[in-house]
Parts: sequence; C-alpha cells; structure tokens
Amino acid sequence: MGAMKTIRVGIVMNGVTGRMGTNQHLLRSIMPIIRQGGVPCGNDTVILPDPILVGRSAAKLEDLAQRAGLSRWSTDLDTVLSDPAYEVFFDAQTTSMRPAAVRAAVAAGKHIYCEKPTALTVAEAYELYTLARDAGVKHGAVQDKLWLPGFLKYQTIRDQGFLGRLLSVRGEFGYWVFEGDTVTPQRPSWNYRAEDGGGIITDMFCHWRYVLDNLFGPVQAVFCEGATLVPERRDEQGRPYPCTADDTAYALFRLQGGVIAQFCSSWAVRVHRRDLLSIQADGVDGSAMVTLRDCWVQPRATTPRAVWNPDVADPNDYLGGWTPVPAYAPAENAFKAQWELFLRHVVLDTPFRWSLLEAAKGVQLAELGQQAWRQGQWAEVPELAP
Amino acid sequence: MGAMKTIRVGIVMNGVTGRMGTNQHLLRSIMPIIRQGGVPCGNDTVILPDPILVGRSAAKLEDLAQRAGLSRWSTDLDTVLSDPAYEVFFDAQTTSMRPAAVRAAVAAGKHIYCEKPTALTVAEAYELYTLARDAGVKHGAVQDKLWLPGFLKYQTIRDQGFLGRLLSVRGEFGYWVFEGDTVTPQRPSWNYRAEDGGGIITDMFCHWRYVLDNLFGPVQAVFCEGATLVPERRDEQGRPYPCTADDTAYALFRLQGGVIAQFCSSWAVRVHRRDLLSIQADGVDGSAMVTLRDCWVQPRATTPRAVWNPDVADPNDYLGGWTPVPAYAPAENAFKAQWELFLRHVVLDTPFRWSLLEAAKGVQLAELGQQAWRQGQWAEVPELAP
Amino acid sequence: MGAMKTIRVGIVMNGVTGRMGTNQHLLRSIMPIIRQGGVPCGNDTVILPDPILVGRSAAKLEDLAQRAGLSRWSTDLDTVLSDPAYEVFFDAQTTSMRPAAVRAAVAAGKHIYCEKPTALTVAEAYELYTLARDAGVKHGAVQDKLWLPGFLKYQTIRDQGFLGRLLSVRGEFGYWVFEGDTVTPQRPSWNYRAEDGGGIITDMFCHWRYVLDNLFGPVQAVFCEGATLVPERRDEQGRPYPCTADDTAYALFRLQGGVIAQFCSSWAVRVHRRDLLSIQADGVDGSAMVTLRDCWVQPRATTPRAVWNPDVADPNDYLGGWTPVPAYAPAENAFKAQWELFLRHVVLDTPFRWSLLEAAKGVQLAELGQQAWRQGQWAEVPELAP
Amino acid sequence: MGAMKTIRVGIVMNGVTGRMGTNQHLLRSIMPIIRQGGVPCGNDTVILPDPILVGRSAAKLEDLAQRAGLSRWSTDLDTVLSDPAYEVFFDAQTTSMRPAAVRAAVAAGKHIYCEKPTALTVAEAYELYTLARDAGVKHGAVQDKLWLPGFLKYQTIRDQGFLGRLLSVRGEFGYWVFEGDTVTPQRPSWNYRAEDGGGIITDMFCHWRYVLDNLFGPVQAVFCEGATLVPERRDEQGRPYPCTADDTAYALFRLQGGVIAQFCSSWAVRVHRRDLLSIQADGVDGSAMVTLRDCWVQPRATTPRAVWNPDVADPNDYLGGWTPVPAYAPAENAFKAQWELFLRHVVLDTPFRWSLLEAAKGVQLAELGQQAWRQGQWAEVPELAP
Repeated sequence: MGAMKTIRVGIVMNGVTGRMGTNQHLLRSIMPIIRQGGVPCGNDTVILPDPILVGRSAAKLEDLAQRAGLSRWSTDLDTVLSDPAYEVFFDAQTTSMRPAAVRAAVAAGKHIYCEKPTALTVAEAYELYTLARDAGVKHGAVQDKLWLPGFLKYQTIRDQGFLGRLLSVRGEFGYWVFEGDTVTPQRPSWNYRAEDGGGIITDMFCHWRYVLDNLFGPVQAVFCEGATLVPERRDEQGRPYPCTADDTAYALFRLQGGVIAQFCSSWAVRVHRRDLLSIQADGVDGSAMVTLRDCWVQPRATTPRAVWNPDVADPNDYLGGWTPVPAYAPAENAFKAQWELFLRHVVLDTPFRWSLLEAAKGVQLAELGQQAWRQGQWAEVPELAP
Repeated sequence: MGAMKTIRVGIVMNGVTGRMGTNQHLLRSIMPIIRQGGVPCGNDTVILPDPILVGRSAAKLEDLAQRAGLSRWSTDLDTVLSDPAYEVFFDAQTTSMRPAAVRAAVAAGKHIYCEKPTALTVAEAYELYTLARDAGVKHGAVQDKLWLPGFLKYQTIRDQGFLGRLLSVRGEFGYWVFEGDTVTPQRPSWNYRAEDGGGIITDMFCHWRYVLDNLFGPVQAVFCEGATLVPERRDEQGRPYPCTADDTAYALFRLQGGVIAQFCSSWAVRVHRRDLLSIQADGVDGSAMVTLRDCWVQPRATTPRAVWNPDVADPNDYLGGWTPVPAYAPAENAFKAQWELFLRHVVLDTPFRWSLLEAAKGVQLAELGQQAWRQGQWAEVPELAP
Repeated sequence: MGAMKTIRVGIVMNGVTGRMGTNQHLLRSIMPIIRQGGVPCGNDTVILPDPILVGRSAAKLEDLAQRAGLSRWSTDLDTVLSDPAYEVFFDAQTTSMRPAAVRAAVAAGKHIYCEKPTALTVAEAYELYTLARDAGVKHGAVQDKLWLPGFLKYQTIRDQGFLGRLLSVRGEFGYWVFEGDTVTPQRPSWNYRAEDGGGIITDMFCHWRYVLDNLFGPVQAVFCEGATLVPERRDEQGRPYPCTADDTAYALFRLQGGVIAQFCSSWAVRVHRRDLLSIQADGVDGSAMVTLRDCWVQPRATTPRAVWNPDVADPNDYLGGWTPVPAYAPAENAFKAQWELFLRHVVLDTPFRWSLLEAAKGVQLAELGQQAWRQGQWAEVPELAP
Repeated sequence: MGAMKTIRVGIVMNGVTGRMGTNQHLLRSIMPIIRQGGVPCGNDTVILPDPILVGRSAAKLEDLAQRAGLSRWSTDLDTVLSDPAYEVFFDAQTTSMRPAAVRAAVAAGKHIYCEKPTALTVAEAYELYTLARDAGVKHGAVQDKLWLPGFLKYQTIRDQGFLGRLLSVRGEFGYWVFEGDTVTPQRPSWNYRAEDGGGIITDMFCHWRYVLDNLFGPVQAVFCEGATLVPERRDEQGRPYPCTADDTAYALFRLQGGVIAQFCSSWAVRVHRRDLLSIQADGVDGSAMVTLRDCWVQPRATTPRAVWNPDVADPNDYLGGWTPVPAYAPAENAFKAQWELFLRHVVLDTPFRWSLLEAAKGVQLAELGQQAWRQGQWAEVPELAP
C-alpha cells in the first residue's frame, strides 16, 4: 500500500446545474472519482479532481454543491478562470453560450473539456478547436456513447476480426416521445422547436459522427431526409405548442471504403427492437446487433440458409439465432470512463483522440445532413484540417 | 345441393415450365382451383379454368402436363391463340420474351394475365397496357404479396383505423444468400449478373411499388443507393463468377401526403428480425410490424414510456410488447387468391385493380431507382396516364 | 425431360448377407440409387447400378434378393467374376476372407470397392492396394463417417475458416454395451473376442484414421492404452464367455503440425455427451463440437470469460453457450453418398480419394495403436508409398 | 450452553499478503473460524486460532491486519518463530521461498501447514516431509479440492457403493484464458512463462495427485503430452510476451488396480461441459459426473440401450438422462474445512492424512509428468517411503 502520490487537478465545472451536467458529469463522474480516491495511474500515483461549480443561479449552485457534498461554487466565471488553482475548464451550458466561455477559458490557459455540440455552427466549432490547438492547451469533448457497454463489446469482437470485411451498417434510434396530452413527455419541449436549437438532426448527428468514425469507418458523405411527424406537442406547463424542428431523420452515410450506414432517428416511432438504439453491422464472416448495453452476434457458421417460401411457416427462429457477447469487464458509467481518460491525458499526456476537432466534425455532419435534406442529394464531407 | 352452373374459361398458360409458372401458377393455383370444383361465384355458379400448356420444349411440356394431370399442351403459340376456346392468355416466360407474346395475344382478342415485370422498360410495359386498354380486353398482372397472410392481416387492422394517421414506414427485406464456396446458394446465379437481367433493384422494386401503392400510399418519389456487397459467387456448376449486379439497395420512397418509406433490400444481410420481409408502419394511434405471415401490433395504450438511461439495464422488454393479430381466415396461397379474383373479373366483370398499368408502374419504379442511384438525388415519379 | 443416356454398371456384391452389407450397402444405398433412376451425371446421363448378390448360403441370398426385389444371385464367385457384364466387385465379407476375394477380382480386371478394414494386417492391406494400382483398376474403400451430417456440417464451417488455427481435438466415442445378463447386448459377441478379430482398437482406429486425416490433419504418431473393462459377457445364445479383446482404448494422435487429438473409445462407458460420438475441435477463433448429425459452435466473440471460483455457483451456462450449425442440405445416407461418388469415379473418372491405399492406412493405425499399447510409448506412423 | 473450554492455538501466518493467502486462508478460513467462536470439538471444547501475520512488507501487513481486524503482524520471522505462543506455522509464500521457512519452523518445533506445491522439486518436498516426521511435529498441506461440494457429493455416493467396481475415470479441466489483445486475461502472466515457474503441468498435477489418490485410487504411473497452444499473450501492462510454458497437458494416469484416468488440462479450450472441471467416473453399477459444486449420476437401471444408427436422429437425450445428487449439507469453504480438520489434528490428534508426504507426492507427479512428456513413454511412480 505505501504512500500514494496524489496529483490534484482543479476543474471549473461551468453550467452543471442542467440535467446532463448534474447527473452525468458531477454526480456520476467527478464525485465517484473523488470517492474512489482518484484516477489510479500505475506507479503509485492518483489524479484527484477538485471541482468548483460555476453558473448563473447562486441558489441552484448552492443546492447542487450541497447534494454533491462540495463546498466551492461561484457565479463569477471570470474570477474563477483567473485562479491558477484550476487547470481544467469544463462546460455543460446550452450550446449557444458555450463558445464565448470556451474562448475565455482558452485565453486563461485552461485545458478544455466540453459537452457536445461544442457550437451551433461548424465554423465556430472548428474555430474553438484551432484556438485551443494554437494555445497549446489540452482539449476534449464528450463522446460518451463510445463507452457504452454494448459498444465496448462490439469493439472487442470487431478487433477480434469476428465480422471479417464489413459490408453494411444499419442503425435505428428512437422511441415514442409522448405528446403531453395524456402522458407526460420524456424530453424537454425545446427539443421540438427549431428556434430553440431543437431538432433530431442537430441532436443526434453529432453522436452518429463519432460512433461511425470510431466504430465503423470515417464518414465521407451524407444523404438525409428529415420530417416533423408530430406537429403539435404540450410543453412543460401543459400548453400546446407547434413543433418547428425535425423529430425524425432518415439518413444514409457513406463511409471510407464505400460501406453504407443507414440510420433512422426518430422521436415518433414505436420500438420493435431489443433497445432504444440498435445498430446492425453485417460482415462477410459474421454480423453483430449492437444495443446500448449488449451485442448479439451471428457467425457465418450458424447463419440460416433462409429460403423464400411464404406458402409455409418459416422453420427458422431468426431472432433466436443470435448469441450475446459476454460482459468481459464490469460496466462503468460512460461519462466517468471518458473523464478518467481526459484527466490522465491532462496529467500524463496519454493519448486522447476525442478532441475539439472531433467535436467540430460532429457539428459538421449535422450541418451537412441539413444541407443534404434541403438539396435532396448527397453532401460530401470535406476534411477539417487538423 | 342443386345444379351448379359451370362457366368454363379456357386459359393459354404460356411459359409455365419455369419454377414460378410450374409451382405457383399451375400446381398451386390453377390445379387446386380445378380440384376444388372451380371458383364459386355466389349464385350457384362456378368458374372452371381449363388450361392448355404452351412452351418451346415438347418434352418439358409433356412431363409437366403429366405431373399436373392435364392432357393438352402445345409448342405452337400462334395456333393456340387462334383457338376461340381460350379466352385468357397467361404469360410466365422470362421477361425479355413477354412483350411479343402479349402483343400477339391482345391482337387475338385474349384477356391478359402476366407475371411481373411485364417488360424490361417502362416504355414497353406501358405500351402493353395501352394496347390492352385500347383493345378492350381485360388485363392484370401478378402482385402476389398483396395476398400474403401477413399483408391481409395488416389491411384488416389498417381498415379498422388502428394506426390512425400514418407517420412512417420502414421495410427490411433480405437474407444471406450463400456464395457457393461452402454452402449451396439459395438463388440462381443470373440474379447476380447485370448482363442477364439480375439485380435486386430490378427484382424487388416492382414488388415495393404495388405493396406501397396498395397498403401505405402511392409512391411519388424515390431515392436509392445500390451496392454489390459480395463481389464473387459460384454458379450452378460451382464455378466462380464476378457479380455485376447490385445485391443491396438502400431506398427512400416518398408517398402521397409526404410519408417516407425507408426500405433496405439485400441478399447480403443476416436476419435479425421476425421474418425475411418485415415492414414497420407507425401511426399516431398505433403501430404494426408486418411479416410474410403475421402482423404484430402495439397500440398507443400499451406503448412504453421509454427513458434513455444507458447507466442501467432497460426494464422494458420492447419486443415482448407487441401482440400478433389473429388469423381470422385460413391462409390461402397468394397466387391462387389473385387468380380467383382475375377469373371473376373476366367472367363477372368484378373490379380488379392490379392491371397492366399497375405492372408498368412497378417497372417504372425500378427504372427510377436506378436513375436516383446514378444521380445521387431524388427522382420524382411521373404519373402514367390511365 | 428428353432422352437420358443410361450407363449400366454391373456390380458383384459379395458377402452382403451380413448386417452392414444388407442394410447399409444393398437396402439403403444400391437399391435407393436404382429406385431414384440412377446417379445423375450432369449432361443428361445417369449411371444405373445393376447388382448380383454373391455369397455362400443360397437360402440367405435368395431371401435377400427377394427382400430387395432383385432376381440375380449366385454362390459361385469365380463364374461371376469371369462375367464381363460386371465391372465392379464389392466386398462386405468378414475381414479374414476379404483379401483372397479382392485378389481374384483384381485378377479378373474388376474395379474394387470394399468394406473396411480391407485386411487383417497392414502388409496385406497395402498389398491389395498395390495389386489394384498396378492392375490399373479403380478402387475404393468405405469411409462412411465422412458423409455423416454432423461431419459435413463441420467441414462446411471449417472451410469457412470459422475455427482459425486448429489447436486441439478431443473425441469421445462409445456407450454402454450391455453384458447380456439382464439386457440384450446391442453388439455381436465376436466384437469382444480377440480370437475372432474383435477389439475396439481394430474396429475403430480404421475410422479414426480417415476421420482425422480428412477433417483435422494427417496422423503422424499414435499413443494408446487399451483395456478390457468388462471381463465376461453373454453371447447370442445367452452363454457366458470371457472377453479377450479390448473394449476400451485411450489414445493420443499427433497430427501434422503438432496438433494432438485425444480419443477415448469405449463400449463400457455411460454417455454424458450430446451423442454417441462427439469430437471437440478448438481453434484460435472458434470451437466446434461435432456429433453424428449435428455440429455445435462457439466463436471467440461469445466465449465466456470463465473465472475459477468454486466458492460460488458459476454464473455461466457453459453448455447453453453453443449454437447448432444449420442443416444447409438434406441429409443423405452416408454409405449411399459414397457409393454415388464411387460409381461416378468408375464411369466418369472423377476424383475419389478414399482408395485402397487410404484403407491400408486405417489398418496401419490400428496395428500401430496395438504396438504403442504394448510398448507403452509413441509409435510413429510411416508413410505408405502411393 | 454452559461454560465452553477454549483452547487457543497460535498460528504464524507467513506470506499471506498474496491472493490465496489473503482471501482463502485468512479472510475465508481463519477469520470466519474466529468469528464463529472457534472449531467445536464435541465435549464443550472449542479450538480458537490466534494468528500473527508475517511477511516482508510492513505496509501490506498493516493494511491486511486492518482489513481482517487483527492487531498483530511482524516482518521478523525468526523472532516470531522463537515465540512459544505460536505452535503452528503456516506458509503461503511463493514456492521457491517455502522450504527455507519450513525448515526454520520445524527447527523451532512448530507444527507445519503449507500451501502446495511445498517445494519446487520432489527431492526437497520429500526432505521437508522427513524433517517434520523426524522432528515429531504435526504437518499438513493444502488439498482444498477434496472439500469442494461436488467432490464431497461424489465421496458420499461412492461410499454408498453406487458405482460398483470402478472402470474408468476421465477428467477435463480448463477454459479459454484470454490472450489480452482484446479481452483482459483471467490469470497472471507468469503462469505462461516457464522461467517464472509457470506451466499447467506444474500447476495442476499436484492437484490431480491428491484428487486421484483420495477419490479414485493411488496413482502408479503417468503418461503425458504437453503443448503450448497459444504462443503469445499480453502481460499485466498490455505488452506482448512469448509463452514459454505449457498451457495444455493430455495425460493418462494408471491407478492401483489398473484403472486408467484420462485427464485433459488446458487454458486454451472452450468449455462444452457443465463446469470448469468435470470428472466422469464409470463403474459397473453406475456412473458419476463430478463438477466443482455438483455430482450427476446415472445408475445401470436407467442407462440407455444406445444403438448406433446415424441414419436417423438418436431418440435419446443423453445429457438429460443424468440426475444431480442432492446437497445433503450446506457447502462450506473448502479451505476452511481443511483448516478445521488440521486444527483438530493439532489439538486432539485426530487423523489427518493430507500430510507433507502427500504434498511431496503432488510435486512428484508433476515432475514425472514432465519426464513422461520428454521421453514419450509411461513413467512409473515410485513409492515415497512414509
């Protein structure tokens, strides 16, 4: 056991009184890391995060600090940024307010870690990247889905070569978000208003970009058709409002090597699948059905020789012919897993490829998806210079 | 039981020694209709089909006639067409030879019934329609999938208003067609050679046209991306050959009213669904999952209020939350069902909307799918004048 | 169907009144081939076997011919061999009588097909091979297990590369053969008497040789320990007799490349497996459990990460984690399948590698197994010159 | 209830900061014995162990003492050995350091209890036995598997005479130990390096010796073939290293009376059995399948009369025809059970046959297994004089 060397990392947690900031970043990531004694780093060293909460509402901050068992919070971002005790700036505000805060933090020499999307336009998102790059600070953006148990299982079997040459990818995301007339909606109303930054293309294509780039192949072109299937919903106060943002997007992504990934994303579908997100990847040697927490596979060796004959009941149990990949390691919270990697990156300079550049790519794909929809044709994805 | 009036309908069955002609049309449609005593028509009347087999190979025709228990066959189409004892001409030859035969039959005043596609180009398919229309003969084309048990169940609940306003349609068709190196392929090799008329767009879009038009809404535009995922296969003699035709097609169809139908058709996917073809239709009030022989539904009342929280195992059993529609009537062979309707149309002039015009629309959609793929943009579907 | 060309092949079926000759060769192979119209050969040709039954007991032959619906039989082998109407000589006598008959048939210019073992010693079995080789006649020996459905399934997935590099093979063969005091034995008593050619090493190592050579790798050395676990049994008349032959053999076979195949063969074990013969093959990428009619597989992707902890019940369902390979083709009788290949070999000169040389290799392995047992050490397997 | 007489036994626990020492011996054996109030000895007496932890790292010892709730620990073995308050010396160090410590403890007049293997060579292991024997101290070695629930069940039915005369024994041990490229290995890397004392023969034959000797019959000869099936793995730091030790061993053991026990031990197999270790014992009257926690049996009376006929699906459900032996007593931790027996042996002089002599026999079998592998022939097992 002996003496452990503890490296403290001060973190400005900006805008964490929102749902994601509070739950995923503070309560399920930073606080558990503190409680477990820090991020272990091999040679008898741990990295201990030391957060200060920053926001606009003193009442909310005080309340949240108390819930978390923290003492420090502030409504004065500038002062906090000027405090050398904090090396990392984390931002979980609404997107429209993020760029200004990130710029100030870079100017103050902080390392940057952000929720996604990092900005409302690719121009601004890319600019944030170049600012951080040129300032020489470390930077990253949340790409939590890569650490979901089902995706980790998929990476394992993909790296084992289970699929062979990848042929096609088909994803289905979504569920029925209730309209609010009889059942309480599961999502905030601004998601369905374009004027408030809502829309499923904006929300999800950021995710699809890093999911595809990292797990299936770099995205090179996009085709998209959006729709607003539910034209009216009720807001948090039960008042009807017109839905001005897309709630559904049918998209094709062309990946490096020509593989097509077909994705349907929708808040107006009923779920006839194993999970809220399911991605089928077919390879020459085997196929995988990836869900949030599981990965089901079928190798060539047990692929049924299906014969089309609707005259008789099909003897095959198609769904029964898939087997789950075992959980080789205990599941960690995806946000916490990425936080630990970022803290190691800050202190130990270990590789961390989920940078502000990658975040800009997510914004880029959402923009190009909108463009493809407007133009009714494929949009090529230009490279963002690193 | 009293005396039944029997109306004999002479049918020239041209090109029925092929797989579909033999099995589906002669052995599973016409012969069972004969054995059951004809098509009952209400007022103590039955329509009794009286077929003559026509083709090029005397040996094959004799053999097939013997198998079916028939005595009449001929290799001389012209003579048979000139025989007034036959009022109906049915054609199941390969597509390239169909138009000439249909023209001759129309010229001879026969009613026309055809396999699909009716011609290789929409121009010729449409011309066949206008010829028949102008000649005043009755005409129809095979659209068998409409009479599959699962589709009939869907029509039942759709007509009951179960879905409410239709929001979206998503279809998946296909299975893994083995390459022939270790497991015998389930389909003929010409399907994978463009030079022999192969390709999944050509094969399946004819079907999707009438399935969509009849069950979900008239098709008004198409976007398509094809692919040849398996580049080499073995033929019937075990010899490798290059695959020159598309084996996979990702398509969007825009239906009247703006509903999008997303279809993936592929001979290179593994089946993680209930059946080889599955179509999900989501409506405001309920959703349906249609398979070849079944239809599973979920009404709004039992729609789970799914909450996105990958931190814990999802408590919902999404697949388990769908219920099958009962089989209210015994399942008939789909081809036979349509034959009975056509015979009643010929004799009783009952409505029969699956005409040569509808068949031309199928060819049209395949052509426009190819065009959309080439151009990488939506192709509008012009109306074919009735 | 047109005119088929029929090539008649006269077959002398010698010694087929025994159990295997009657059931497997005459009633389940030759007669079904005749009933199906012969062996189809592609270009409108069929090979029609035309058997004559030969043996020592006129009564048995007449009876068998009647059961089979045949008219020709004879007790005079010499005369039949001199008849040019018969090109193929097949022998299913007891082993000790086989060499003389095969020599006479080779001398008469017949093609040779034999049950195994072809002789009691490798010297004699190899001599039969050289005689046939030098005479230029075609020849083969029964290696039926290669056409068992489970083995065919294994070959399919092996050829697909499912296993990756082969690591190890472990076979278990056998079951409890009742001693005859209370339950009727399932096997003839001579199997348990060395003086009558009995013994499980002699019986089964012939099979293991071709099974290993063909499915897993050429055998290069053998280690063996035999045993007679049940010292006394009852014969067909219920009389006790001492068992002088081995009823159990524990063996290791070293295959080309160094893979070890461990086989336990026993008529004195109870079956705690899926089938009477089960062979597990482990590869780097996946494993297979081959049984007579099935093949169960587990890919790397679903291999449990087992942890040794006997303190608690193991959470893994190990047997449940294997999936059966589908039956891609209808199962044929294994003997009939090999007969058809031999007849095609005789008429069309198609390849047929299951020759008298291969049969001699089987006898060789049984001999070397006995030697290894006596000497208590590995016996290398010398090559038999082709 | 009344007054209990408590007999304190001081135990020097040497080298218990390792995994086995900490978990199995201290936390799951000695501490639970203390918490339950000692080992009951019938006549109102209990034996209460009183441990002192000894090792080289003060930090580790202090930490472990705290975890266990103990106060005494020391880094000075000599001083502790000279303390008459401790009568028992227990050793769980790495094997190479064990002999010197045992020698010192014997010289100090302590009773000896050791982890296995007791030494690296049979010569030294046997010498430890003779030293203890000649010094007149009590001694024992860990043979935990004998107290596993499955083995206890087997002993019960064996002692009931269920099997009748024992005919054969076949064991399979092992599972897939992941290589570390995609899934974290379940075992330490030194297991796969010969230079660090790794290898499955060394690891497991010690166990097989006492399992066989105690449950099935004394081992009299061994044949063995080892292999290194996986040539490269990743270590605890993710670095590739060459595997220099055997990971697989195919062995035959000849037991007293001539029964053969066939054992396959491997860290490179997939598990197609009920458990990670399974041993089938066939007897004339019945058979048993022993696993870690269960024992499945099949008596003669329900043994299927299997008939070899691969032409049809076998009607028998062979695996289903075995019945589990009930758990007649609650399962205890195997290590704790043996500790209680040893403490009773020390205090009450009750029989304890799992002595340092037995431990030496385990080392002997591993050595002879290696020799048999090198020589390719049986190695007789000479008796170690008691």
